[in-house]
Amino acid sequence: MMGKIVFGEIKGIKDGHKFEGRKEMMQGGFHRVWARGIDGNGKEGAAAIVLSGGYVDDEDLGDEIIYTGAGGNHNGEQIEDQTWANSGNAGLLTSKDQGLPVRVIRGHNHKSQFSPKAGYTYAGLYSVVDSWVEKSKSSPFKKICRFRLIKIDSPAEGESADDERKPKNSINDNPGNDIDHPTKEKKRKPVTVLRIVRETIRALAIKRLYNFECQVCKFTILTKGGRYAEGAHIRPLGKPHNGDDNTNNILCLCPNHHVMLDKGCFSIADDFLLIGGVKGQLIVHPQHKINKDNLKYHRSCHGFD
Amino acid sequence: MMGKIVFGEIKGIKDGHKFEGRKEMMQGGFHRVWARGIDGNGKEGAAAIVLSGGYVDDEDLGDEIIYTGAGGNHNGEQIEDQTWANSGNAGLLTSKDQGLPVRVIRGHNHKSQFSPKAGYTYAGLYSVVDSWVEKSKSSPFKKICRFRLIKIDSPAEGESADDERKPKNSINDNPGNDIDHPTKEKKRKPVTVLRIVRETIRALAIKRLYNFECQVCKFTILTKGGRYAEGAHIRPLGKPHNGDDNTNNILCLCPNHHVMLDKGCFSIADDFLLIGGVKGQLIVHPQHKINKDNLKYHRSCHGFD
Repeated sequence: MMGKIVFGEIKGIKDGHKFEGRKEMMQGGFHRVWARGIDGNGKEGAAAIVLSGGYVDDEDLGDEIIYTGAGGNHNGEQIEDQTWANSGNAGLLTSKDQGLPVRVIRGHNHKSQFSPKAGYTYAGLYSVVDSWVEKSKSSPFKKICRFRLIKIDSPAEGESADDERKPKNSINDNPGNDIDHPTKEKKRKPVTVLRIVRETIRALAIKRLYNFECQVCKFTILTKGGRYAEGAHIRPLGKPHNGDDNTNNILCLCPNHHVMLDKGCFSIADDFLLIGGVKGQLIVHPQHKINKDNLKYHRSCHGFD
Repeated sequence: MMGKIVFGEIKGIKDGHKFEGRKEMMQGGFHRVWARGIDGNGKEGAAAIVLSGGYVDDEDLGDEIIYTGAGGNHNGEQIEDQTWANSGNAGLLTSKDQGLPVRVIRGHNHKSQFSPKAGYTYAGLYSVVDSWVEKSKSSPFKKICRFRLIKIDSPAEGESADDERKPKNSINDNPGNDIDHPTKEKKRKPVTVLRIVRETIRALAIKRLYNFECQVCKFTILTKGGRYAEGAHIRPLGKPHNGDDNTNNILCLCPNHHVMLDKGCFSIADDFLLIGGVKGQLIVHPQHKINKDNLKYHRSCHGFD
């Protein structure tokens, strides 16, 4: 039986890790599907792909890969159009929309200077940055789904996959009162892959709680890959605000209200009444605790006090 | 009389350029205002700032600057609240919202390891990445407007300010038919400051033509600094699409419809009828020519053909 889908690094498996065959990759949920290139689906996203030489259109520049989606291929020839309805293709679209990282594995059959002579090699985490439809090289009348993946920077030195289990405090060392002294905060480590994955997964939990409907206007964007909304931080991440990535600091918003929150076109009172340029009441799910200190911080930053 | 505001590099003046005094900076429109720190206004944006030691709250980390807005300061003491209505502060907000670059100049009175012993030094182009309100250090009951600026990467070797006048073809060397062969295109130069400035200014011209109202839904975002909309490219910039930054490839959209265009939730027919998940007609100003090859490209990329 197929285990739960896992995004990001898998403990004990670093860039360059070698697998003898696909069976070894299935252990621990690294790549859970035997004969398919894409491990994932439209609902959850795609967590891993294998480059195995099955598609003549694949292009591998190392840190950048143009990947061909799944479907319609018979012995290397494209005999049918590919579609976004294919679960693997829909999974990669969801990973793109939600910012989920994809583990990339190169197989010995894949033709590139980066492929192993035998077995499979883990190439690291990539972001899906683009997707489109084009005509196949092998069969110019058949359409293929294409994805552009870019390698995510490696974790900073001294960080390991174990850090994901121990909550890191480097982004909220100075809660509450550091606004007057932003230079006194400790020099933060570069943003790491692990933190990006954690932020993405926390924002996704909030977006799913609201079924991707904006907490201000209920609008949701329907894409080819599913529903789309944005995770907006009430107290911004990064200097000098140093907001944290807890779910109590994240709202599910449409892009318009995300921009408007960030620019302080409106703010939010402690009773969730909207203040400023947007009227109404923030919709808050009973399971979504919201950090009121952060609401206060947002009001103060944008002059609503 | 004050000349026209100019954004970005000024011909003949490179990073590190020394000015004897403020009079020299006023020549050529480098920094047009005598006693004020910020050259600009809410309508056009701010093109240049001087760090001159007038504000105790300024913080200078070299490539990152926390800058205090204008107003309410008397002999270094904050005697009144600063406001976003101040034309300099409104100018920096506009530069933030529109992505306009700001020339930063350090004066000898400014206290930092980067300041000159005498006169003024040009520190290069910066982006305004954040703005907020906080209490002043000198007068803890007075509010100040604050801006975070980050230095924009220097132009790539071999490029000069003259390139701005000669249209560069490096991003549209292969018009039209390169979709099947994205690896055959020439290796492009890194995105340069000049190109960023040019793209920003072209997008801004289109946004102004529509008074920042979305060409799909007429929505506009009202910020503290003015109106806000986004410049959306019909055929995307960058690999593998290689769209260009001409105004005939740019639409003025709200963030929601920008996301939806980029994700192919809808596309646009040659008669500007909307296709797919959004119904209606694209609003097109008589002065705005739209490249129909790019509309066709967008439809094809997103399976609307």
